[in-house]
Amino acid sequence: MSDSSIFNRRKFLGASLAGAGVALSAKQTLAQAKPDPLITDVQDWQRYLGDGVDKRPYGTPSKFEKNVIRRDVPWLTASPESSVNFTPLHELDGIITPSGLCFERHHSGIAEIDPASHRLMINGLVEKPLVFTMDDIRRMPRVNKIYFLECAANSGMEWRGAQLNGCQFTHGMVHNVMYTGVSLKTLLDEAGVKSNAKWLMLEGADAAGMNRSLPIQKGLDDCILAFAMNGEALRSEQGYPLRAVIPGWEGNMWVKWIRRIEVGDQPWQTREETSKYTDLLADGRSRKHTFIMDAKSVVTNPSPQAPLKFKGRNVLSGLAWSGRGTVKRVDVSMDGGRNWQSARLDGPVLDKSLTRFYVDFDWSGQEMMIQSRAMDSTGYVQPSKDELRKVRGVNSIYHNNGIQTWLVRANGETENVEIG
Amino acid sequence: MSDSSIFNRRKFLGASLAGAGVALSAKQTLAQAKPDPLITDVQDWQRYLGDGVDKRPYGTPSKFEKNVIRRDVPWLTASPESSVNFTPLHELDGIITPSGLCFERHHSGIAEIDPASHRLMINGLVEKPLVFTMDDIRRMPRVNKIYFLECAANSGMEWRGAQLNGCQFTHGMVHNVMYTGVSLKTLLDEAGVKSNAKWLMLEGADAAGMNRSLPIQKGLDDCILAFAMNGEALRSEQGYPLRAVIPGWEGNMWVKWIRRIEVGDQPWQTREETSKYTDLLADGRSRKHTFIMDAKSVVTNPSPQAPLKFKGRNVLSGLAWSGRGTVKRVDVSMDGGRNWQSARLDGPVLDKSLTRFYVDFDWSGQEMMIQSRAMDSTGYVQPSKDELRKVRGVNSIYHNNGIQTWLVRANGETENVEIG
Repeated sequence: MSDSSIFNRRKFLGASLAGAGVALSAKQTLAQAKPDPLITDVQDWQRYLGDGVDKRPYGTPSKFEKNVIRRDVPWLTASPESSVNFTPLHELDGIITPSGLCFERHHSGIAEIDPASHRLMINGLVEKPLVFTMDDIRRMPRVNKIYFLECAANSGMEWRGAQLNGCQFTHGMVHNVMYTGVSLKTLLDEAGVKSNAKWLMLEGADAAGMNRSLPIQKGLDDCILAFAMNGEALRSEQGYPLRAVIPGWEGNMWVKWIRRIEVGDQPWQTREETSKYTDLLADGRSRKHTFIMDAKSVVTNPSPQAPLKFKGRNVLSGLAWSGRGTVKRVDVSMDGGRNWQSARLDGPVLDKSLTRFYVDFDWSGQEMMIQSRAMDSTGYVQPSKDELRKVRGVNSIYHNNGIQTWLVRANGETENVEIG
Repeated sequence: MSDSSIFNRRKFLGASLAGAGVALSAKQTLAQAKPDPLITDVQDWQRYLGDGVDKRPYGTPSKFEKNVIRRDVPWLTASPESSVNFTPLHELDGIITPSGLCFERHHSGIAEIDPASHRLMINGLVEKPLVFTMDDIRRMPRVNKIYFLECAANSGMEWRGAQLNGCQFTHGMVHNVMYTGVSLKTLLDEAGVKSNAKWLMLEGADAAGMNRSLPIQKGLDDCILAFAMNGEALRSEQGYPLRAVIPGWEGNMWVKWIRRIEVGDQPWQTREETSKYTDLLADGRSRKHTFIMDAKSVVTNPSPQAPLKFKGRNVLSGLAWSGRGTVKRVDVSMDGGRNWQSARLDGPVLDKSLTRFYVDFDWSGQEMMIQSRAMDSTGYVQPSKDELRKVRGVNSIYHNNGIQTWLVRANGETENVEIG
């Protein structure tokens, strides 16, 4: 994908697409005048044997899905080893992100760790410092949970107005998988946390030695050290063989390739929680300890990479999530926020998990300004971008959970736009 | 994997494994006499940058997980195009089966279908015969559901006694994913089912033209035509671009690559529901319409491919499911059925879905006969193999949901055995 294609207001391939809505009818009856040759013609896949079960010991997607990939933006960072790529949200459905499409964010590239050589140390304010092998960890009681992980910088470039043309780029630093692992409390209890302990420092085994401070109360509450995602071992780019799962909190704290937990009585003030991952306000001060990811949503279809192709019936689809609980309701506007209707939530609605929503609607070809607005179980309502800017200014690149607007033109073309 | 290795009672690599339980302690304290060099030594992955985000647009498992694959049994069938491979249940955790590891069963190999050319026809006893493109289907209201799919022949070779040495082979014709698609009722309502309609015939677009009869009541109740699994498009080997989802019923009815639904007033008596997929009883009669997969469970760890490696604390793990509802309880015996304890169910417990269970236990090195027994929400309790044989004889290869027994030897070696 060329750099220019992710920018907003690119030249749209209107000519070929504009006709599609009339060229294909919504459905074709057998009685129609010109029968579709595909209905009666025998296709190759009906004529010949396909591949057998010996061909793909580990399966991969159909060759017709080769555009369904993570995409990176080469100019965004100095090197691909300290960069990010994005989940193709507009190509996905349901609430599970396939492991091969979960966005990546690395500070020193992907550590390729031999699990037999990996160790987890717990030290600091504990009764008994411990070192665990992966075998040790696999012999402790396990838990299974589905959680979203969102990078604090997701939608960061949109603070100053509509920038990137596609939800993969504006909102694609989020994924949602089922984790299996050991609760952090189980591990800490084994080491025996001292009574003056207040903070944990989580440290990765990558070349960056990525580390973050975590309040011990959160660590004892619902955090997990996970060794599996979506049923199988963690992927290398997601922290194989062991990563921290910090439900509802910013992705940077979910330390990958975790090798050490130090227990202390104050935060460590690491690079990743001081010069980075803090929100610089208009007056030059920074917000401190902005860990929780607030309620947010985005319409994934239609969106700039997935324009409307047909008049008549259509499915509007999107994702909503909250770091404070469950998604209670999602409202959708087709007219830039004047009128709202409640979307249909479908599939599991789980704590701190992506939640799928739909609006089934008929499109007569009018221009639309599409927005979605999530409300979570605490009653918090996703704000507009301007409401956020009034409080936070425009210096930050973190924690932008403002309402996204897509402009759908009469030919189906869809753009990232900024209103109100 | 050589053919011989899947058979029962193979020679076990006892020497190297037997020592492992004492060679590594459950955990090592920092104060121990000989510090583990891995604790202090810097590993390569801490020294050098790893791969960047540009390297893997679609991710794959770690190179250290290359044994986590589907396995087929070449001698089992005449050709790999009309054969089966098996999900590596002993390598997985949680309840989601990764799409790349979902077992395959084909009758004419994998149809590689271009979705732009695929059509679904509904004909027969309907007011208005219809043909749908994939675009048409994607514009209809969607549903998201997690369901298990089990081949009717799963555990089939075990009818006549312990045969295969590993839960991948005894129980690996099952998987569990989240589907996204359109409810079959929505499609049938569009065509207008006539009042005398009683059965549906589902037909695939593979070279076998695989077809099955389905009672219309089931079709209107909870069936789905799915285009996505685990968030992304169906895999080719699972019916891309469209498959039937028939919750709780035998896998053969979940027609892949579905191209036609005929509405009729009686079953079609196709090959797959007459000479195949019927249970031949001892007196020569066959059971008819044995669609529902009854409650079943299996201990996945320990199991012959995943022996016990350590004394002391261990995690016993397994899967349970029922085609009639949810899993209510799983009991586990360590002594061949004399004493039972309730396992801990962990993770989502969903209707007609795999359910994960655990028993956290200490092992002192004694021989064990491990069994699990599922009870579902209807009160049905998984029977012993002998109880099944008393009713069904030993001719069948279908619908074996009997209790599985693993013998764990003092050195941790685990075998498939038959008792009582």
